[in-house]
Amino acid sequence: MPDRSFAVVAKAGDRIADLSTPRPVIDEDRLAANIARVQSYMDEHGLNFRPHIKTHKIPALAVAQVAAGARGINCQKVTEAEVFAEAGFNDILITFNILGQQKLERLARLNERISDLKVVADSEVTIDGLAAHFSGHKPLTVLVECDTGGGRCGVQTPEEAASLARRITAADGLTFGGIVTYPKPQSAAAVEAFIAETLDRLKSDGITCPIVSNGGTPSLFEAHLVPSATEHRAGTYIYNDRQMVRMGHCSEDDCAMHVLATVVSRPTADRAVIDAGSKALTSDLQGFSDYGLIVGYPEARITSLSEEHGVIDLSNCTGPRPQIGEKLFIIPNHTCVVSNLFDTMVFHRGGVVTRVEEVAARGLVW
Amino acid sequence: MPDRSFAVVAKAGDRIADLSTPRPVIDEDRLAANIARVQSYMDEHGLNFRPHIKTHKIPALAVAQVAAGARGINCQKVTEAEVFAEAGFNDILITFNILGQQKLERLARLNERISDLKVVADSEVTIDGLAAHFSGHKPLTVLVECDTGGGRCGVQTPEEAASLARRITAADGLTFGGIVTYPKPQSAAAVEAFIAETLDRLKSDGITCPIVSNGGTPSLFEAHLVPSATEHRAGTYIYNDRQMVRMGHCSEDDCAMHVLATVVSRPTADRAVIDAGSKALTSDLQGFSDYGLIVGYPEARITSLSEEHGVIDLSNCTGPRPQIGEKLFIIPNHTCVVSNLFDTMVFHRGGVVTRVEEVAARGLVW
Repeated sequence: MPDRSFAVVAKAGDRIADLSTPRPVIDEDRLAANIARVQSYMDEHGLNFRPHIKTHKIPALAVAQVAAGARGINCQKVTEAEVFAEAGFNDILITFNILGQQKLERLARLNERISDLKVVADSEVTIDGLAAHFSGHKPLTVLVECDTGGGRCGVQTPEEAASLARRITAADGLTFGGIVTYPKPQSAAAVEAFIAETLDRLKSDGITCPIVSNGGTPSLFEAHLVPSATEHRAGTYIYNDRQMVRMGHCSEDDCAMHVLATVVSRPTADRAVIDAGSKALTSDLQGFSDYGLIVGYPEARITSLSEEHGVIDLSNCTGPRPQIGEKLFIIPNHTCVVSNLFDTMVFHRGGVVTRVEEVAARGLVW
Repeated sequence: MPDRSFAVVAKAGDRIADLSTPRPVIDEDRLAANIARVQSYMDEHGLNFRPHIKTHKIPALAVAQVAAGARGINCQKVTEAEVFAEAGFNDILITFNILGQQKLERLARLNERISDLKVVADSEVTIDGLAAHFSGHKPLTVLVECDTGGGRCGVQTPEEAASLARRITAADGLTFGGIVTYPKPQSAAAVEAFIAETLDRLKSDGITCPIVSNGGTPSLFEAHLVPSATEHRAGTYIYNDRQMVRMGHCSEDDCAMHVLATVVSRPTADRAVIDAGSKALTSDLQGFSDYGLIVGYPEARITSLSEEHGVIDLSNCTGPRPQIGEKLFIIPNHTCVVSNLFDTMVFHRGGVVTRVEEVAARGLVW
């Protein structure tokens, strides 16, 4: 069988230009700067910051985020939380409706193990399922998810939020932990209005709301425009990507992840083909019409992907064109889904490998 | 750490309706029928059939394909070929331009190990790189890749194909193995014309062309319309997917893969949210405007995906609507990229688990 050990992927001191491709690599200095820049903003505004680990799925990076000042972490799956609990994290918020016998049983075991596990719920069905699996011996903290315009999960009105808070409060095995929202970008006023009305209703009901958790990277630097929030959650900011550049969160020079690819064919003057396809870059368009930004070739466009090939249109290139065998550095449209495709992540400083980390929480369903 | 063993995922006798989600599952009877139907067509037309393992990446399935009559297998990566060589396969065609020191060294070791390794090349650079790593002691068989209209890799003209064939023939460490194409669907006449002219040129040069390899699932049942081809390659046919239904290769009842997902939220009357997002279904649209077909809810549309959520628009549903906690069976747009996200694959017959296989060749870059 192929050697799956880290040493085959890369070892400290290797040049990333010599790595086998396709391969995402992370720039250590940009990574550190991204962590520092966001934490500094949160500190300045007195907001607790809770990084979402779905972007990297690597405990060592969450350690760095907490060392910088983050308070707790955010996971999307029970298994992600298990991996990070094993790595020593105690304050974990899972922003997902947990349903189904297997997941609830695992969640109950996890709650026995760490001090401060929290989940969200946006329906009576979810709350009742949780209530049936937890007891007053060690209650589970549950926050109510509110849809403030994001259009995904969440109750639609402050009335519903308050109603679910009362249901959580009434359950022996559950503790009401607050409210959570994942808003659409640039909607601070709507978010604040929804939260303020919800807090009023909770106050009328005599229910304390310890946490008001807002989220998202794209409008992260507008988090202070939601003054009722006590914390902010974000994941993508740690690596950044082409979408975050377009949304104004960062510049291309803040993108810590590049997907390294090799030009394997130049069938025509206007066409190059690389060895990074949808199994390396993913098909996430994120509103773009092409599949990533090629550093140094701004006029080249990755116009289509098959599984292991990316087809690049060079027809607009006025300067040099990439040659067969050349390595390209690509800023992916969406970094979180690229992470999820690779079992290991290579880090570098100035093109020299510093370390290889296991993407420990990928590939786990339960 | 979470238990990653197969037993946690599922074991024979479990009901798939009880599995934790999101989870792709494979219907054994449909799988067997897909293998038999395609092999029977190839046998009828006297074509060798070479299944592409990129769809499943599971040696046990390739064993079944060969047992049914397939001659050799097709891989897209050196590491995929290593995994299948370890499993006992000797006739392996890697349809990729292999470039770079690490890959060439691994390819050379693999060539020492199995009897009938073949790769493709579409440029002098690729051929010269191969020639530098192989010797007359155990030459590597190289086929010339031809772009007959597919618009990906491949030489553009029969002249170029013949020129590269001469270059391969002239290299001590290489043996000319034939020509390969991955055509666009429904282009049999153009493919045949390109091949016929190439064969004429090779004949004039006194070069024998042992293999003419045509490919693709969408127009697989038109393979006989390319009489010069000696073999056909296809991958997706083994599982089939929504795209193959649209392209007329099969019906919905031939789709062996379903992604099992749970409805985790019903925020509004017209919106359901499932726990399958882009990290389970992938963002591959394949020409559709939504992300999969929900069995039993043909009017429901999966309109957007975030990483762990899929948002379903129910506004067109005239009948019952899925409820929180309900399990849905989704035919994915593209099965091959779904396989690539999961470390294990669950098989069932009539909803009862028959086996769990490791997706052995996923996650390997080199």
